[in-house]
Amino acid sequence: MPIFKPIEEIEATEKVKEIYEEIKRARQIIEVPNFWKKLANHPETLERTWTSLKQVMKKGALDPVIKELIYVAVSVTNSCEYCIKSHSLAAKKKGATDEMLKEMIAVVGMANETNRLVEGYQVEVDEIYK
Amino acid sequence: MPIFKPIEEIEATEKVKEIYEEIKRARQIIEVPNFWKKLANHPETLERTWTSLKQVMKKGALDPVIKELIYVAVSVTNSCEYCIKSHSLAAKKKGATDEMLKEMIAVVGMANETNRLVEGYQVEVDEIYK
Amino acid sequence: MPIFKPIEEIEATEKVKEIYEEIKRARQIIEVPNFWKKLANHPETLERTWTSLKQVMKKGALDPVIKELIYVAVSVTNSCEYCIKSHSLAAKKKGATDEMLKEMIAVVGMANETNRLVEGYQVEVDEIYK
Amino acid sequence: MPIFKPIEEIEATEKVKEIYEEIKRARQIIEVPNFWKKLANHPETLERTWTSLKQVMKKGALDPVIKELIYVAVSVTNSCEYCIKSHSLAAKKKGATDEMLKEMIAVVGMANETNRLVEGYQVEVDEIYK
Amino acid sequence: MPIFKPIEEIEATEKVKEIYEEIKRARQIIEVPNFWKKLANHPETLERTWTSLKQVMKKGALDPVIKELIYVAVSVTNSCEYCIKSHSLAAKKKGATDEMLKEMIAVVGMANETNRLVEGYQVEVDEIYK
Amino acid sequence: MPIFKPIEEIEATEKVKEIYEEIKRARQIIEVPNFWKKLANHPETLERTWTSLKQVMKKGALDPVIKELIYVAVSVTNSCEYCIKSHSLAAKKKGATDEMLKEMIAVVGMANETNRLVEGYQVEVDEIYK
Repeated sequence: MPIFKPIEEIEATEKVKEIYEEIKRARQIIEVPNFWKKLANHPETLERTWTSLKQVMKKGALDPVIKELIYVAVSVTNSCEYCIKSHSLAAKKKGATDEMLKEMIAVVGMANETNRLVEGYQVEVDEIYK
Repeated sequence: MPIFKPIEEIEATEKVKEIYEEIKRARQIIEVPNFWKKLANHPETLERTWTSLKQVMKKGALDPVIKELIYVAVSVTNSCEYCIKSHSLAAKKKGATDEMLKEMIAVVGMANETNRLVEGYQVEVDEIYK
Repeated sequence: MPIFKPIEEIEATEKVKEIYEEIKRARQIIEVPNFWKKLANHPETLERTWTSLKQVMKKGALDPVIKELIYVAVSVTNSCEYCIKSHSLAAKKKGATDEMLKEMIAVVGMANETNRLVEGYQVEVDEIYK
Repeated sequence: MPIFKPIEEIEATEKVKEIYEEIKRARQIIEVPNFWKKLANHPETLERTWTSLKQVMKKGALDPVIKELIYVAVSVTNSCEYCIKSHSLAAKKKGATDEMLKEMIAVVGMANETNRLVEGYQVEVDEIYK
Repeated sequence: MPIFKPIEEIEATEKVKEIYEEIKRARQIIEVPNFWKKLANHPETLERTWTSLKQVMKKGALDPVIKELIYVAVSVTNSCEYCIKSHSLAAKKKGATDEMLKEMIAVVGMANETNRLVEGYQVEVDEIYK
Repeated sequence: MPIFKPIEEIEATEKVKEIYEEIKRARQIIEVPNFWKKLANHPETLERTWTSLKQVMKKGALDPVIKELIYVAVSVTNSCEYCIKSHSLAAKKKGATDEMLKEMIAVVGMANETNRLVEGYQVEVDEIYK
């Protein structure tokens, strides 16, 4: 038995129900994803996370599609299956082509490699970077 | 005494010297960064890494500046000081504004957070993502 | 075919059998969990791990329930499904309420976020912390 | 030259200045730590992070001292020097004894070890944990 | 629906087909593993990765079996199920005994533990190591 | 002020002093490294770690030099400066050549890269690996 069960829309209390509706409206989807249904076990966390994501992922100096690609890049680095799958889909919905995704994955692979080459060789930071 | 010392330009063997010159020309810099000087201890690794980076970081469906931002995002996730500093500078040289960097950092923070919320609540992948 | 199969209780050699019985008695369970059955492929590792865990997780300045919450926090950070599930259950058995688990998860999320904000902004350690 | 410089109190704009004062008051300190001075480069991130931390770290089912110990545990797992140092000090200010810190570190070590033993032996989740 | 589907041998374009044949010949297998079928979505990445692996994993000062054990060690540390399973099998094919695998796993566990003890206690690098 | 100070040899209590002497004898060194001096703050952890390392790192199906290379590989993956430096030196003392270290670093880089390519492309485990 899982420790936390998803809070289905039909069980949702007022504040949670309100956020569920906002998520569906903002994302143009008909069902609340499991991530939010699980967070709803702790309404405070559900609200803080939704509010933060809206702020962080909105269009700014970076377009939302670029922000989603960065999100997938981090999730790939951390091996988070749920986030890789959901944010890859979100990236595509926001305009990412498969080619953009593949190029991002190649960059993520190289970065994870050179991050470790730096450690293995204990590379000291050059003066111009300090 | 460090296990590996940087191979200074004056010590560089032919193949290494050739790559050093190419790096300086491509990056429009006058000194070879420590990362390459350390990799030069293993010429095979120096060559493979330089060749791979040229291929992976070139302009494609994604612009080089976006690729650098993704590179920093991964390096931040992995706490690689050398890579964070050097690729942040590279991103700026390729056109990233401070605002773009700050927005990328905010996304990296949120992604690292939600990646773990997914784990804590053991969120199952929705059918639409499979 | 898996490289290592679980060593079932019926196959267990003397030293392994002894540890299996101790685990079941200490945890008040009727079946040895898969973790221990897999470690039993290397009796030396089984013994060292069980002995270490008994020492590290016993009541001290911190109560066992707090130690389990810390264990889950690390396992969430490392995305270890087995450890998250088993230690969340252990935490509950030792007195953790769902509210305590949810608050711990929220802390883990924030910590993983601010750990990376520190890296992104390359924050220097204040004198008072050194 | 660092990409981002700390925003000193004397340079702080209104919203930032307000948050700086709140941080100093809440923590009973006379100088704003570098973490916040760096985040102040992006006032939106400074505000969101401060607000989130106040909510997540307040006394609830878990006492603030326990939350700080969990924060250090995650920071140790992620090798974040700034966070380890600052939150270890915060934990002590909130009542953690050195013994509590040492026991927490021992748990973090063991958890990071067994998280990998699970992976090495590809341990399957027991039915009772699902 | 997955974002990227495996490119089956029957769909493979010329360059990809060529690499598929080389992989099967080099590994003495009759079917191309899923890893390569997925990478084939980006022929450039398929080629670069195959070429790099051939260079990095060949017999040198270290035997291929030792290189595979190191590969598994890293994959265990990063919780990469696919890599743990595939490279554990590769290690066995290249001569690793179960005992060697078990001893490697024990080392990986200890290293992940002491890496964090170092962080928890903020151990300074001794002069003789600098 | 650091939370934990190294316990110098002159301050060492009986059990700690005993372990210090054993470490120096076993490693043929004249000064106890900082790692052990910091662990000595918690004699139980000092003893458990020293005992575990002796068991795990001894000659078995794998030679000590190979075990040290694996230790460095994990430490590089986790960016643990202290462990990278100290275990690289230990590897050399046990017979590792610079060439062996460089080849290990190259493997670590590739493994960290392909671990993420697997995640980015969400590669499913082949039947023959299950």
